[in-house]
Amino acid sequence: MDTLNGLKRTNYCGDLRSSNINEEVVLMGWVQKKRNLGGLVFVDLRDRSGICQIIFDTDVNKEAFEKAEKLGSEFVIAVKGKVAERSSKNPNLPTGDIEIFANELRILNKSETPPIYIKDDDNVSEELRLKYRYLDLRKSSMQKNLILRSKIANIVRNYLSDNNFIEIETPFLIKPTPEGARDYLVPSRVNQGKFYALPQSPQLFKQLLMVSGMDRYFQIVKCFRDEDLRADRQPEFTQIDCEMSFVDENDVMAIMEKMVQVIFKETINVDVELPLQKMTYAEAMERYGSDKPDTRFGFEFKNISDIVADCGFGVFSNSAKDGKSVRGINVKGHAEDFTRKQITSLEDHAKTYKAKGLAWMKVGENREVTSPIAKFFTEDEITAILDRMDANSGDLLLFVADKDQVVFDALGQVRLEVGRRLGLMDNSVYKMLWVTEFPVFEEDEESKRFVAKHHPFTSPMDEDVDKLEDGDKASLRAKAYDIVINGYEVGGGSVRISNAELQQKMFRALGFSQEEANEKFGFLIDAFKYGTPPHAGIAFGLDRLTMILAGTTNIKDVIAFPKNQSAVCPMTNAPAVAEEVQLEELSIKVELGEQE
Amino acid sequence: MDTLNGLKRTNYCGDLRSSNINEEVVLMGWVQKKRNLGGLVFVDLRDRSGICQIIFDTDVNKEAFEKAEKLGSEFVIAVKGKVAERSSKNPNLPTGDIEIFANELRILNKSETPPIYIKDDDNVSEELRLKYRYLDLRKSSMQKNLILRSKIANIVRNYLSDNNFIEIETPFLIKPTPEGARDYLVPSRVNQGKFYALPQSPQLFKQLLMVSGMDRYFQIVKCFRDEDLRADRQPEFTQIDCEMSFVDENDVMAIMEKMVQVIFKETINVDVELPLQKMTYAEAMERYGSDKPDTRFGFEFKNISDIVADCGFGVFSNSAKDGKSVRGINVKGHAEDFTRKQITSLEDHAKTYKAKGLAWMKVGENREVTSPIAKFFTEDEITAILDRMDANSGDLLLFVADKDQVVFDALGQVRLEVGRRLGLMDNSVYKMLWVTEFPVFEEDEESKRFVAKHHPFTSPMDEDVDKLEDGDKASLRAKAYDIVINGYEVGGGSVRISNAELQQKMFRALGFSQEEANEKFGFLIDAFKYGTPPHAGIAFGLDRLTMILAGTTNIKDVIAFPKNQSAVCPMTNAPAVAEEVQLEELSIKVELGEQE
Repeated sequence: MDTLNGLKRTNYCGDLRSSNINEEVVLMGWVQKKRNLGGLVFVDLRDRSGICQIIFDTDVNKEAFEKAEKLGSEFVIAVKGKVAERSSKNPNLPTGDIEIFANELRILNKSETPPIYIKDDDNVSEELRLKYRYLDLRKSSMQKNLILRSKIANIVRNYLSDNNFIEIETPFLIKPTPEGARDYLVPSRVNQGKFYALPQSPQLFKQLLMVSGMDRYFQIVKCFRDEDLRADRQPEFTQIDCEMSFVDENDVMAIMEKMVQVIFKETINVDVELPLQKMTYAEAMERYGSDKPDTRFGFEFKNISDIVADCGFGVFSNSAKDGKSVRGINVKGHAEDFTRKQITSLEDHAKTYKAKGLAWMKVGENREVTSPIAKFFTEDEITAILDRMDANSGDLLLFVADKDQVVFDALGQVRLEVGRRLGLMDNSVYKMLWVTEFPVFEEDEESKRFVAKHHPFTSPMDEDVDKLEDGDKASLRAKAYDIVINGYEVGGGSVRISNAELQQKMFRALGFSQEEANEKFGFLIDAFKYGTPPHAGIAFGLDRLTMILAGTTNIKDVIAFPKNQSAVCPMTNAPAVAEEVQLEELSIKVELGEQE
Repeated sequence: MDTLNGLKRTNYCGDLRSSNINEEVVLMGWVQKKRNLGGLVFVDLRDRSGICQIIFDTDVNKEAFEKAEKLGSEFVIAVKGKVAERSSKNPNLPTGDIEIFANELRILNKSETPPIYIKDDDNVSEELRLKYRYLDLRKSSMQKNLILRSKIANIVRNYLSDNNFIEIETPFLIKPTPEGARDYLVPSRVNQGKFYALPQSPQLFKQLLMVSGMDRYFQIVKCFRDEDLRADRQPEFTQIDCEMSFVDENDVMAIMEKMVQVIFKETINVDVELPLQKMTYAEAMERYGSDKPDTRFGFEFKNISDIVADCGFGVFSNSAKDGKSVRGINVKGHAEDFTRKQITSLEDHAKTYKAKGLAWMKVGENREVTSPIAKFFTEDEITAILDRMDANSGDLLLFVADKDQVVFDALGQVRLEVGRRLGLMDNSVYKMLWVTEFPVFEEDEESKRFVAKHHPFTSPMDEDVDKLEDGDKASLRAKAYDIVINGYEVGGGSVRISNAELQQKMFRALGFSQEEANEKFGFLIDAFKYGTPPHAGIAFGLDRLTMILAGTTNIKDVIAFPKNQSAVCPMTNAPAVAEEVQLEELSIKVELGEQE
């Protein structure tokens, strides 16, 4: 094998243009393709920037030509040569106007035949891609994604720095807080029998930084949750984490939507119009059945409970009261696009979200209704329904009747599925909005206890604060806000409680005894005694934001070395069995079996 | 308590100048000091940017005045008022030319009397400072340090981005590698009985990113080592981690010393002259007894072994052979600055580094020598020693005779101590250099095995590569380099092995069986088969770099929330006992006692 021996690269492969013609260049990269043609050897040489065509000709350099004949795919080479105008130009390639006539070739490393192809449309399993991630990352799509991610982080950092934010690192080895999601624990060797936790977010530390007068903090930081994995969930994920003092929710939203605008402009050249729409949580649920509505298309919810309260269709009339409802969407103008069979498949979709069924009506000429359930309604009821649904000829109406939460979930998912099938989820369109006034509490399904929807440090709205101790907890609204893009929650935050007494009341409302509160958050309660400024913050999911900007729906495509669905790294086989001596030093023992 | 209620801050306290006179401003911050004087209330209002004087006057606003009378230290307030020229200017304060006449005061939060004072010269214990870190961080020195740290990170990111480096995040939950320092382990719940490790560095991942063609990588990233803590060591620390393809050691040093130059210029306005001096490891040891020499002052080592080989002083003559030596430093011109008592305390210092003693000679008029050991030497020997030591009237010579390693350590530390006592460690002077050609191996004291001095992926120098299998391992030099500033190792790196066969040889030389090597690093060995570019990298310690630029010698002063010497966070009391249910879910059990 040859060595660099002081040879310096002069250009990246993908950067060469007609303007470089006649220059002597040194390129280094991987052999993407090699072919012998008409007594010449043609090599497509690849590096991070792209591909460039190299020609080896005995007349130019015999030794280089003979070496080139032996090149294989993915060999690593250095080439010295002269840039020439290409004889047969390739308009599909940025470097298609030129080619290099090589007068020197060094083979820096060989390659065995790679187990996966280095091309984007390679149809190998995800597991194999992850096992050979170092090869998978050679693909231009993956390189583009990682470069995009790096660029977003850089834009964010510069934007926030320009706006007086200071990047401050918070600890990774913190105190376990058995609240919210499950912590990853780290046994301590120095303090035997005790454990650190990896942070689910820097929440407490960033609030303490506000107490310390740092004024504006940010951090792009890894966070950890030991939850069961879904397609878009990883054990570790990256947050753009921000906190500001002396501001209210509108200040935070204003400065952060401007950041989103800058990101979209500088990465994909999309103009975001500001200010973004703001929609309350209540309105979002009413109109879309979701607190992260995809507003790229309509088909908004209508509540017909009042109309069907006394109708002859028991499924509807029984659902028209007591926290239940009957709601529908109008798939405007698309009656013909859904056959009975297709509607049945929509119904199946609804059922996976706990709906018992999906009622439908097609509206024909003169608002004539075709529907298996039409017979149960009076003519007046039908007219009232059509009026409420704003229905006309050619419309398809879909209804779910159930507990509110099921209606929201199931009909909301049906709405998304309809949008998907009709091609309305256009990845080149970006619809974003703020969802505000989230509930402070939500009921935990298992324990029937009220838990914090956001976290225990979120401030209730001023007008609702009195309900904290006496009133209807479920109706308490928070100074919380999420930014939603194309149906994804991309960021979320809140004004924090900055008053020690109110914080104590909140802990009580969440059912913490004084002792528990002190044990878990005593240092925060203490800190709040010594002059805490009003403060508010937000955290963006960098993985998800990058995913949207990259136009992919697979979060693993924007993470260099992700885990698979079993929280395993197929490349390194992490996690692994630890050596006995390591566990002894930590005074811990593995006791398998109990759980199995 | 008052609320913001839409009130917006217009300026930071510390930014106001004469040019703002007559402006109506809104400031928010903490009450640093309040005094009643001549019927007025004077408040020093503090925020991150500095301090500004506010005057409350009944004639301007009675209500605000009456509220102001009740203010206490560290109350959080918002003040609206008019900027006026100060009647008695304070040239020591950036805002000393102005003051604010307040016409509105809002008390946003009260404060109890803080347990530590918010001022820099507060002499409280470090433990108390860490317990109330949120108050400690209100000190201007600490805020400056964190702002400096953020600025360094930003400069680094922009410099590296401008030089085609891409920031790529590598995983925190990785495979345990029982090599080098002790890993922090993280039990896996999904994969019962198995463990992740927190990374000691992203070494393997950044090399794999080079295999994947990412070409230039960087990351500012937390790393973890479960080692016993020293003053300048934390369980988690931050690295500026870089890797480059198609380069050699000189390329890395050139691009990185330029980065250091930019950092010094943009943070503390110090000009660093490039290129930096390069010194081999062998030369650094010969001249300073250290691979991280503090070159702010001289007193270089001289070897007098040959002169004293047959002298009458047994301590010297016995040390003049077989991996032992007698070396000295000339504390030039400072004979009078060290009394016998002070020399004895230097000797005590030498003894803590395992020296058996510290011999000394003072040189007087006509090179007359005063020394308890003078009588053991012939006149010729004395002359030869003085010549070798370049000694003249007024010089103090200090000698250690022992095994080389002890001589280097002990005399090196004596040299530093002498420099410290003579005030030669000037923190406003910055002397930096590269130390190169480190040994590939070092002998592990306990096991007497050769281990990697840097890590097993460091490339030997081309001319030494053949010694890997046959030759004298101890003499093998690596393509490794450290950047040293004022005696601190601030960064270090190496050219990596990019050849699969050479890597295998290295594993064998380190005593790994084929099986072990595959078990630990199989994925890297595999990766190297598919076209690995020549690559090299470096990692800087951000904590240490910030410490030097901040002019402090306590690493905790540049970390927002550090751990104490027992790896405990005195503020949150992390680590803590975990709940039983958490451990059950992980199938692990704490078994104390065995170790105690």
